Amino acid sequence: MIILGIDPGYGLVGFGILEKNGGNIKALDFGCISTDKGEKLTKRLEIISNCMHEIIDKWHPDEMAIEKLFFNKNITTGIPVAQARGVILVAAQERGIPIFEYTPSNIKMALTGMGKADKKQMQFMVKTLLGLQEVPKPDDAADALAVAICHSQTNQSMMGSI
Amino acid sequence: MIILGIDPGYGLVGFGILEKNGGNIKALDFGCISTDKGEKLTKRLEIISNCMHEIIDKWHPDEMAIEKLFFNKNITTGIPVAQARGVILVAAQERGIPIFEYTPSNIKMALTGMGKADKKQMQFMVKTLLGLQEVPKPDDAADALAVAICHSQTNQSMMGSI
Repeated sequence: MIILGIDPGYGLVGFGILEKNGGNIKALDFGCISTDKGEKLTKRLEIISNCMHEIIDKWHPDEMAIEKLFFNKNITTGIPVAQARGVILVAAQERGIPIFEYTPSNIKMALTGMGKADKKQMQFMVKTLLGLQEVPKPDDAADALAVAICHSQTNQSMMGSI
Repeated sequence: MIILGIDPGYGLVGFGILEKNGGNIKALDFGCISTDKGEKLTKRLEIISNCMHEIIDKWHPDEMAIEKLFFNKNITTGIPVAQARGVILVAAQERGIPIFEYTPSNIKMALTGMGKADKKQMQFMVKTLLGLQEVPKPDDAADALAVAICHSQTNQSMMGSI
């Protein structure tokens, strides 16, 4: 099974492609969709939509896992991220891919056994679990692989797609 | 010129189609895209995307005007609305339509001369300015016509598209 993990964002959208084969997982690809600050808002959203379709059409993921969004104090920056997340969700939905969402705490728990693991611990576990030589860069790509790994370890009969 | 006005939402997206001819404005169509609470989040976003494309392909608007989003206290309900707004923006961007956004206060000022007009005053002005027999229903459609009217009265050389 191929899993697409997404770390939602506006300037940077992290993605990770994971192959799950029985109990084994392998990273097939990872990286970021980046949009230029100099471009208009709507153009940037269109770029995210187009890149999502390209990634999906290249890897044909069976399922997508995405981080759940929370707004804490920085509500203003949250609006563009939520708008981008809507675009990301529709791009996958249009390709008929079931989508699952996980909280940061779900993801930390799945990778480290602790709901409050820090960024370094998480990156170490992504590297270790995928048998990589180095921590995937940028951070958004590592975060996307983390949510994909979390999904690969989750009993999906317990979780409905969104 | 044909203007598409949008009141962004998740359960209900208001739309209004306005024809501007010199100093005259006329409502060609208005209504709501509604999505069922029983459907999954991603399905509802896809419905919004498809309906936006249908409206655009039917009326071929030259420009779109949409309400700017603010989060006040209810941040949790704001996330789905922002996600839906991203989907709406991309649908118009994909059709090459320039998009303009206005704050609620911009819209109230344009229609009534007061930035703090109440809902009833706004609905009365939508009805009056468009020469309609009754206030457009539901409220979301009237709000969408209001943002379209606001755009029709705005000097666009002063405002960049988003």
